[in-house]
Amino acid sequence: MSVSSSPVPAVPLLTDQLDIVIPTIRNLDFLEMWRPFFQPYHLIIVQDGDPAKTIRVPDGFDYELYNRNDINRILGPKASCISFKDSACRCFGYMVSKKKYIFTIDDDCFVAKDPSGKDINALQQHISNLLHPATPFFFNTLYDPYREGADFVRGYPFSLREGVPTAVSHGLWLNIPDYDAPTQLVKPRERNSRYVDAVMTIPKGTLFPMCGMNLAFDRELIGPAMYFGLMGDGQPIGRYDDMWAGWCIKVICDHLGLGVKTGLPYIWHSKASNPFVNLKKEYKGIYWQEELIPFFQSATLPKECTSVQNCYLELSKQVRAKLGKIDDYFIKLADAMITWIEAWDELNPPAAAAAEAPAKVANGPAKK
Amino acid sequence: MSVSSSPVPAVPLLTDQLDIVIPTIRNLDFLEMWRPFFQPYHLIIVQDGDPAKTIRVPDGFDYELYNRNDINRILGPKASCISFKDSACRCFGYMVSKKKYIFTIDDDCFVAKDPSGKDINALQQHISNLLHPATPFFFNTLYDPYREGADFVRGYPFSLREGVPTAVSHGLWLNIPDYDAPTQLVKPRERNSRYVDAVMTIPKGTLFPMCGMNLAFDRELIGPAMYFGLMGDGQPIGRYDDMWAGWCIKVICDHLGLGVKTGLPYIWHSKASNPFVNLKKEYKGIYWQEELIPFFQSATLPKECTSVQNCYLELSKQVRAKLGKIDDYFIKLADAMITWIEAWDELNPPAAAAAEAPAKVANGPAKK
Repeated sequence: MSVSSSPVPAVPLLTDQLDIVIPTIRNLDFLEMWRPFFQPYHLIIVQDGDPAKTIRVPDGFDYELYNRNDINRILGPKASCISFKDSACRCFGYMVSKKKYIFTIDDDCFVAKDPSGKDINALQQHISNLLHPATPFFFNTLYDPYREGADFVRGYPFSLREGVPTAVSHGLWLNIPDYDAPTQLVKPRERNSRYVDAVMTIPKGTLFPMCGMNLAFDRELIGPAMYFGLMGDGQPIGRYDDMWAGWCIKVICDHLGLGVKTGLPYIWHSKASNPFVNLKKEYKGIYWQEELIPFFQSATLPKECTSVQNCYLELSKQVRAKLGKIDDYFIKLADAMITWIEAWDELNPPAAAAAEAPAKVANGPAKK
Repeated sequence: MSVSSSPVPAVPLLTDQLDIVIPTIRNLDFLEMWRPFFQPYHLIIVQDGDPAKTIRVPDGFDYELYNRNDINRILGPKASCISFKDSACRCFGYMVSKKKYIFTIDDDCFVAKDPSGKDINALQQHISNLLHPATPFFFNTLYDPYREGADFVRGYPFSLREGVPTAVSHGLWLNIPDYDAPTQLVKPRERNSRYVDAVMTIPKGTLFPMCGMNLAFDRELIGPAMYFGLMGDGQPIGRYDDMWAGWCIKVICDHLGLGVKTGLPYIWHSKASNPFVNLKKEYKGIYWQEELIPFFQSATLPKECTSVQNCYLELSKQVRAKLGKIDDYFIKLADAMITWIEAWDELNPPAAAAAEAPAKVANGPAKK
């Protein structure tokens, strides 16, 4: 296809249409390394843990910062749907953003280098992934057909070559791979050093493990389904926030004819989290997921569900009906899914969804 | 996973369990470049076109060669299922082989180099792909989880980590990509120079365009479905032989719980075929495939079909019933699918399937 990603643009793209969401409990020194790539963009920092703590942000960045007190004040009783003491709190940032696109990254992720030794502008690659179509209905063996130097191969149906809009771009990690606790324990020294130079669409009907460490999406297309669930403080489970969101968004993207990509860009993941702590957070998820995956694999949404919100509310009903039997936690989660949509719609009233939101001006923290 | 491909083995693997099938109309000088990798293996050469022509094979290779007269003599009236004047004739080689594995390669494919400049032993990579399990039920974002330095990522269900047997390994091409005639015409100078260092399983329920240029498979698991159809001389279509086989094997592998991989290894594809000639061969396929893909996407096989042969005969019935309406060609093709299975079973009687076949000794050409 002649639609292809151009070489490094002189000007950063979408600076006024994209927010970078960062959940954190510490000073954001990691931003120094990202300065050349992130400084033109607005940051939404979601401070987890003790709200009395001051988070230092390097000079020169344009940001807003929300701590737990802000979340409680803005959402009132609906703040119950936002996790505490877990990076799942980041999804509050998706909700208060008024931009079309979100990029979210963890504060232990640094700039990786490509095989030629050049710094990888992860954000730029995500933007390219989101701005080019996806191809969920048939597999292209030469990977992304819209990339420079590639195309659809022989035997690819011509009627499918326009592709569909891309809703989600899932990036990967060099150095510390995103392993679960058992794998961390068994392979403490494993590092990912393989740079796979590919972006691909995850086929329709196929689920994948979506990691929130290095992730971008189109808020207008899929935002209301990017809920990271109930994790951490007071919950029986952790480290399944992004997985939960990934299963939900994939089912909804498949239903709405939207694309989900994975592959480039890589970030450098600097340190493995403690596998013993992780095991404690994960162990229920490890056996629950054996029932969750078949649930999501067979989940279907009625034709009448044409908005993300409708799809998500329908999914919450199915979660309650079918997963409630596994554990009461899923009843609570189904309720939280509804609360999340109510809160989303409150902060993003349909008419103002694509414009500057008065709600934020009224309720948001002062711009730093 | 600790099951991983080891570094270059000192001894070539499976030398007595794998045949290399090469369809050709010319002297096989291309084998010189492959000598270090192919010489330990037995070759089955299927000579297309004029049987009076002598095909020269470089010294030192162990091979048997079949021309059209041999095919007619061995199969009798059933030879009608083997295409003439089209590389689809290669599937005769799959049928007369008595080995467990097949690797097939075109005679315009040369040894490619990896990014470090090292010659790629394509056959060795295919063998590794076939000997390691596949993971069709859930997507692993770090690609092949069984490879050295990789594993299943967080959120991958543990119950699926054993994987399933791999039936097919589809390799790719550097230099000339496998494009259809319209794309060749539009992008005459496009070359594939991107080395993507990945092997992946094509998810269950997803079809792909299988190219026969650089392909390996497990004959015992899927051989009887590897029929390359009716193409070339006397047929209304060409260059869809491998595509047809790819759609059929994928539906059957999905039904039987077998895996299909694509990605590494690369070969160096030296020359593009003539796009004008290709357009003539392809044009009916280009519009037919718009109906064929939905047919294969929705094809289901009854639970009673537990052997590849049964699955394939059932598929032939559906081809006749549903595709026969498009063109009488598909009625003829459905008949040929049955003839192919009859011929396969004749040359590969169940009891002797895994052993040396007396039929070949009786009917085959003298070993050269």
